[in-house]
Amino acid sequence: MPTVTTFPKSFASDNHAGVHPAVLAAIVEANTGDAPAYGADSWTRAMEDAFRAEFGDRATVYAMFNGTGANIVGLGLVLRPYDAVLCPATAHINTNECGAAERLLGTKLIPIPTENGKITVADIHDALSVLGNEHHSQPRVISISQVTECGTCYTPEEIAELAGFAHTRGLFLHMDGARLANAAAELGCPMRAITTDAGVDLLSFGGTKNGAMGAEAIVLLRPELDAPALFLRKQNMQLASKMRFVSAQLTALLTGGLWRENATHANAMAHRLADGIAGLPGVSLRHPVQSNAVFPVLPEKAIVELQRRYLFHVWDATENVVRWVTSFDTTADQVDTFTADVRLAVLGEADG
Amino acid sequence: MPTVTTFPKSFASDNHAGVHPAVLAAIVEANTGDAPAYGADSWTRAMEDAFRAEFGDRATVYAMFNGTGANIVGLGLVLRPYDAVLCPATAHINTNECGAAERLLGTKLIPIPTENGKITVADIHDALSVLGNEHHSQPRVISISQVTECGTCYTPEEIAELAGFAHTRGLFLHMDGARLANAAAELGCPMRAITTDAGVDLLSFGGTKNGAMGAEAIVLLRPELDAPALFLRKQNMQLASKMRFVSAQLTALLTGGLWRENATHANAMAHRLADGIAGLPGVSLRHPVQSNAVFPVLPEKAIVELQRRYLFHVWDATENVVRWVTSFDTTADQVDTFTADVRLAVLGEADG
Amino acid sequence: MPTVTTFPKSFASDNHAGVHPAVLAAIVEANTGDAPAYGADSWTRAMEDAFRAEFGDRATVYAMFNGTGANIVGLGLVLRPYDAVLCPATAHINTNECGAAERLLGTKLIPIPTENGKITVADIHDALSVLGNEHHSQPRVISISQVTECGTCYTPEEIAELAGFAHTRGLFLHMDGARLANAAAELGCPMRAITTDAGVDLLSFGGTKNGAMGAEAIVLLRPELDAPALFLRKQNMQLASKMRFVSAQLTALLTGGLWRENATHANAMAHRLADGIAGLPGVSLRHPVQSNAVFPVLPEKAIVELQRRYLFHVWDATENVVRWVTSFDTTADQVDTFTADVRLAVLGEADG
Amino acid sequence: MPTVTTFPKSFASDNHAGVHPAVLAAIVEANTGDAPAYGADSWTRAMEDAFRAEFGDRATVYAMFNGTGANIVGLGLVLRPYDAVLCPATAHINTNECGAAERLLGTKLIPIPTENGKITVADIHDALSVLGNEHHSQPRVISISQVTECGTCYTPEEIAELAGFAHTRGLFLHMDGARLANAAAELGCPMRAITTDAGVDLLSFGGTKNGAMGAEAIVLLRPELDAPALFLRKQNMQLASKMRFVSAQLTALLTGGLWRENATHANAMAHRLADGIAGLPGVSLRHPVQSNAVFPVLPEKAIVELQRRYLFHVWDATENVVRWVTSFDTTADQVDTFTADVRLAVLGEADG
Repeated sequence: MPTVTTFPKSFASDNHAGVHPAVLAAIVEANTGDAPAYGADSWTRAMEDAFRAEFGDRATVYAMFNGTGANIVGLGLVLRPYDAVLCPATAHINTNECGAAERLLGTKLIPIPTENGKITVADIHDALSVLGNEHHSQPRVISISQVTECGTCYTPEEIAELAGFAHTRGLFLHMDGARLANAAAELGCPMRAITTDAGVDLLSFGGTKNGAMGAEAIVLLRPELDAPALFLRKQNMQLASKMRFVSAQLTALLTGGLWRENATHANAMAHRLADGIAGLPGVSLRHPVQSNAVFPVLPEKAIVELQRRYLFHVWDATENVVRWVTSFDTTADQVDTFTADVRLAVLGEADG
Repeated sequence: MPTVTTFPKSFASDNHAGVHPAVLAAIVEANTGDAPAYGADSWTRAMEDAFRAEFGDRATVYAMFNGTGANIVGLGLVLRPYDAVLCPATAHINTNECGAAERLLGTKLIPIPTENGKITVADIHDALSVLGNEHHSQPRVISISQVTECGTCYTPEEIAELAGFAHTRGLFLHMDGARLANAAAELGCPMRAITTDAGVDLLSFGGTKNGAMGAEAIVLLRPELDAPALFLRKQNMQLASKMRFVSAQLTALLTGGLWRENATHANAMAHRLADGIAGLPGVSLRHPVQSNAVFPVLPEKAIVELQRRYLFHVWDATENVVRWVTSFDTTADQVDTFTADVRLAVLGEADG
Repeated sequence: MPTVTTFPKSFASDNHAGVHPAVLAAIVEANTGDAPAYGADSWTRAMEDAFRAEFGDRATVYAMFNGTGANIVGLGLVLRPYDAVLCPATAHINTNECGAAERLLGTKLIPIPTENGKITVADIHDALSVLGNEHHSQPRVISISQVTECGTCYTPEEIAELAGFAHTRGLFLHMDGARLANAAAELGCPMRAITTDAGVDLLSFGGTKNGAMGAEAIVLLRPELDAPALFLRKQNMQLASKMRFVSAQLTALLTGGLWRENATHANAMAHRLADGIAGLPGVSLRHPVQSNAVFPVLPEKAIVELQRRYLFHVWDATENVVRWVTSFDTTADQVDTFTADVRLAVLGEADG
Repeated sequence: MPTVTTFPKSFASDNHAGVHPAVLAAIVEANTGDAPAYGADSWTRAMEDAFRAEFGDRATVYAMFNGTGANIVGLGLVLRPYDAVLCPATAHINTNECGAAERLLGTKLIPIPTENGKITVADIHDALSVLGNEHHSQPRVISISQVTECGTCYTPEEIAELAGFAHTRGLFLHMDGARLANAAAELGCPMRAITTDAGVDLLSFGGTKNGAMGAEAIVLLRPELDAPALFLRKQNMQLASKMRFVSAQLTALLTGGLWRENATHANAMAHRLADGIAGLPGVSLRHPVQSNAVFPVLPEKAIVELQRRYLFHVWDATENVVRWVTSFDTTADQVDTFTADVRLAVLGEADG
C-alpha cells in the first residue's frame, strides 16, 4: 500500500472525501457470486425501485460512471444535430468538461451571463428569436445546475417557471444535479419537489459528491425520452459491465435517507464555516451560502498563506475569490480549526 | 439488500464474476481520509509504478472506466479526422461497442475477414493501396485483440511482424487487451513480451475481466503519444473524480502476480472444460482453446437444454456455435458439474 | 486563359466532361439583376416545380453542391446517433467519400459483399439480428446506388422488394442516384418508376454527371422527412448563397427531357464501346453493361499501352479490370477511335 | 425561364447580386472539351498561380464551395479534438453557420464580446489561463473576420499584434476573409499586407460576395498546414468534381485587379449611402463605415416603411439597427434613389 501523507481536511472539493461507510458496505455485500452483466442484475432492479420511490413512478434511471457522462448521455437524448443548449456561462458543461458537449454531442452551448449561477426566463428570451431560422443553431434545451456552480439554489417556483416557459416554446429543461441532494437538504424539500414536480424533463443525478465511490445517473422524468437511453449510454462508454457495484452505491444513498443526512451535514458545515469568518476585515462572501460551498473574497496574502497548508481552489484570481467545499465527512472540529487559521491569516494580514 | 437467486456458475462471461477479494480489500483500504481528485493521489502514483514495472520504464498509463472507453481514448490519440482503423471483422470495437468508434472518433473501421480472429500482414496489404488518395479514408492504425474475440492468441512473433509492417508503412499497432492477462498466462511470458517488446504502440489494458470491480487503462508505449491523453480521457468521460479507488484495483492486480494467478486459473478451467467434452458425438471446437474461452459446436437441442439452467451465449446461431467463458473464480467442481450436464444434454440428444 | 492541352476524349469519368450548352445557357440567363439568396428566389421555385413534375407532388427537393453532400445530408435526416447504414461494400459512400459518413454523421456503414454492386433482401437479413440490442449499432437505412458503382441497374421490382422489406422492419431505403438518369434511360422508364413508385424514401439526385456544371440534390419522397432538411443542409455546408445558379442548372436538365436525352446518349456510347471490343481475345466484361460504364478485363500490357494516351481508371489492379465511362458529349467517332486503339493494343499484345 | 419580378436594388446582402460579367465569361470559356476532375486541370493550376502572386510564393490554396466550407475545412487543419476557437461573439462561425463548427469540428467556440466586431490581445488574455488544464477546452486558434461582421476593418498593425501574441502562446491566427477584398480596398493595401505579411496563418478567402457565382477558398500561409488539406476538403464535401468552373471564377477575380475594382466600387457605394443619410434626425451609425456595409439606427416606423419596398435586414431589433450592404453592381443612381426614400421615410416619420 502506498504511504499516505496526512493532510488537514481538504476544502477543495467534496470529491476529495472518501466513500461513506454504508456505501462501501453495500459494495462489499454485492460481491457475492455471479451476477449478469450490464445491469441485468437484482441490485440494479433495486436501484431502479429506489429512484422511482424518490422521483415518482414514471421515472426511469440509468447509472453512469461520472457527471460528465450523465450530462452528455442525458442531453444526447433530446438534441437533434442542429440544436443548441442554453445554459449559464458558469455551467459545468460549459466550463469544466473539456468541450465534451461540443465534441461528443456536436451541440452549441449558448452561455448566458448570470448573477450567482442562476438563469431566469428573462435571461433566455432573446436567444429564442432564431427559432426556425436555418442559419442558426436551434435552442432546444435549457440546462440548469441545482446546486449551481456558485453554490446557490433555485427555489421550486423558479424551476417551475423555467420549465413552464421551456415547454411553451418546445424546449426541454435539463438539470445538472451533481449536488441535487444538497439543494433538497437546504430547501428542506423532497428531491422530487425540485425535479419531477417542478417540471424538469431530465436530470443528471449525482451520487459521488454525496458519499459514493463513483456513481451517477440520468433520471428521465418523461417516459417518451426513454427509448434511446440504453443505446446512448453504451455508445458513450458509460455502461458498466459489473453494474451491480454501481447500482448498489446508488441504492445505499437512497436508502433510509442517507443522501439527505450526508447533504444536510455537509451544508451545515459550510454554514458553520461562513459564520466563522463573518465580520473579518476585508472578507466578504461573493455568493450567498445555500449548500456545501462558500465563496469568500479574501485578502490575497491570506490566500497565499492558507494554501500553504490547505487544499482549496482560487475561483476568481482577479478578484481574490476562493471556493471552500465541505463534505459528508467534514467535522465541526475541522471547520473550527480551519476557521481559526483563516482568522489568523486574515488578521495577521490586516496587522501586517 | 435484494434477494439474490442462486444460479449455477455462469459461463456467459468473465464479467459475470464478482471482485477478487484482494482487489476488494485494496478498495476498502484506500478509503482512508481525503485524497486529491482526478488522479493527483498516491494510489495513482503507485499504480503508475506498477505498470512501469510490468511494461517498461517508458510506459505511461491512464486509468479508464471500461474497455470501450480505453479503446476510444487510445485510438483517439493517433487518429486524424480522415483516418481509418484496420481490424478483424470480429473486433470488439467493430461489433460490440454500439458504433462508438464511428460516433465518437469519427473514424472508419475497415473490417478484415479472419480465421480465428487473428489478422496477418497479408490480410491487410491490399487495404493500404489507398494511402495518399484523398477520396479514401486513410488507414492509420492496425488494431488487434489479444486474446482475440475467438479466444485465440497471437504469438510474440506474430505481433512483432504486424508491428514491424505497421511501422514501415507509417501506421500504429493498437492492442485491445481486455484479456491481455489471459494471453500472457497462456503463452507463459511476461505481458511486456507481447506488448512493449513486440512493438505494440498502445494498449487497452483490461482489469475488470481479470478480477477488478471496474478498472481498465490505456498504456502508451511510445512517449510521443502521451501529450493529449489527459485531455482526451477527460473529454471522453473516462476521468474518475475519486480516482484512487480505480487505481487501487489496478495496483492490486499487478501486485504479487495476482493478474497471472487469476488468468492462469481461468485458462486452466477453460482447458478442463474443453477436455471434458472432447470426443462427444456431434461436438467440435470452432476455435482452438488458447485462453479462458471455449467455442464448441453443439447439437441445437443440447444448446436449448443447457440454456434452461446455465447462462452462456450462442455465438453463431446458424452454425450452433456457443461460447463458454471461465473466470478467476470458476472452480474445478463447477466445471465438472457443467461438463457432466453437457454430456447428458448431448448424449441424451444423441440417444433421442 | 490557361493553355489547354488537347487530349483525346477521356473515358475516365463522366465528370471529365464539360457543361451541356443548355445548362450553361440557363446559368447565363439567370444572371439578371438581384435575387434573394439561399434559395428564396424564383429559379429555385421553378426547380422545385420541375422535381415535383418528375417525382410526384409530395416530393421535396434541396439543391446541394455535390454528391457526397447530398448523401450526407440525406442520410442525416433519418439517422439517430446509434444507427448504422447497410450498403453494398462497393457503395460510393463506403469507398469514395473519405469517411464522410463516419466523420460527419457518426454512423457505421455495414458493407455487404455483392455481385455487380446490387444487394438483395437475402443479403441483409442477417445484419438485422442485432436490432434492439444496445451493444450494437442499429441498422436504420438500406442505401443502394442506382446506377450502381459497377454500372448495373436495379429493376423497379428489385427496388420495390428492398423497399417493402425495409419498411416492414422499420428501416428506410435510400438511393444514391448520382447516375439515376442513366438508369431510367436504360430501363426505359420514368425516374419516378424507380424511386417514388418503387418505395424509395429519399434520393440523392445527380445532375453533374448528366451535364450540369455542379448541381446535385436530395429528393425526399416522404413528407415527414422534410422538417430538418434546411438545417442539415446549412450546417453541412451545402447551402449556396447565390442558389439561383444551382437551381437553374437542375431545371435545365429536367426541362424538355434533357436529362433523358443526355443519359440515353451516354448509355448508347457505352454499349457501342462494349460492342466494339466484343470477341477480342483475352477480353471480357466484368459486369454487364447497363448504363454509361464498361468494366472490361484486359491484358495488362494493353492497359499500360492505352493509358499512355487515354485517361481511364484501373478498377481492380489484381484482376486487370478497368473502367470506361462515357458521357453526354462522347461522340460515336470518339468511341470508334478508342475502340480501334483498344483492338490494336489487345491484338498487338496477343501477337506479341 | 421563370418570370422574374423586378425589385429595386437589394441592400440586404452582397450575395443578392449576380455574377460579374468577367467571371461569367471565364466560366463560359472554361467549358471547352474534357478536363480531369477534382482539380487536376489547368484552370486550377492557373488559379493557384494567381493566389501565389497575391499572397506570396509559400501560399497554398484550395477552392471551396462556400464560406462555411472554407471556415470549417481551414479550422479543421489546426484543431485537435479538445481545442477551442477564440472569436468575437459576432463572428459568422459563431452566429450564422448553424453550429457547423461545433457539429463538424467538435470544437468549442469561445465568444469574446467586442465593440465593432474587433478583438484585441487584451480581450483574449484571460481566456488563456486554462491552457494545460485537462478540465477545459484548450484555446488553439484566434479567429477574426476581415471585414468584420460589423463592417469594420482591422489595420495591418492590429492584425500583426494579434498574430504575434497568438504565436507567442502557441496559437494560430485564422482570418475569415469573406470580404477580404473590401478590407484591402478600404485600407488601400495589397491583400497580402493584411494576411501573409501581418502573420495570419490561414485564411478563408471570399469570392462570391466579390462577384463570383460561387467560389471561395482556403489559403494556407504556413506550409506545414498543407498536408491534410486535400483530405479534409474531400471529407467535408467541398471538393468540386468539375473544379475548373470554380477555379476559373477565382482566377477571373484575381486577374487584372478585378477583385479590387469590385470591392472599391462597393465600398464607395456604402460611403455614398452613409453620406446621404448623414444628419437626418433620429438617425445615427452604429458602426463606422469601413467597407461595403452601413449599420444605421433608424426610427422604427421608417424601418417598417422602407422594408415594404426594399430588401434589407434588421440587425438588432431591440435597438432599431439595420444593415445595408452594397455590391459590385450597385449603382450611384440606386444609392441615391434609396437614400431619397430613406430621407422621406425618416422625415415623414419625424413630421408625423
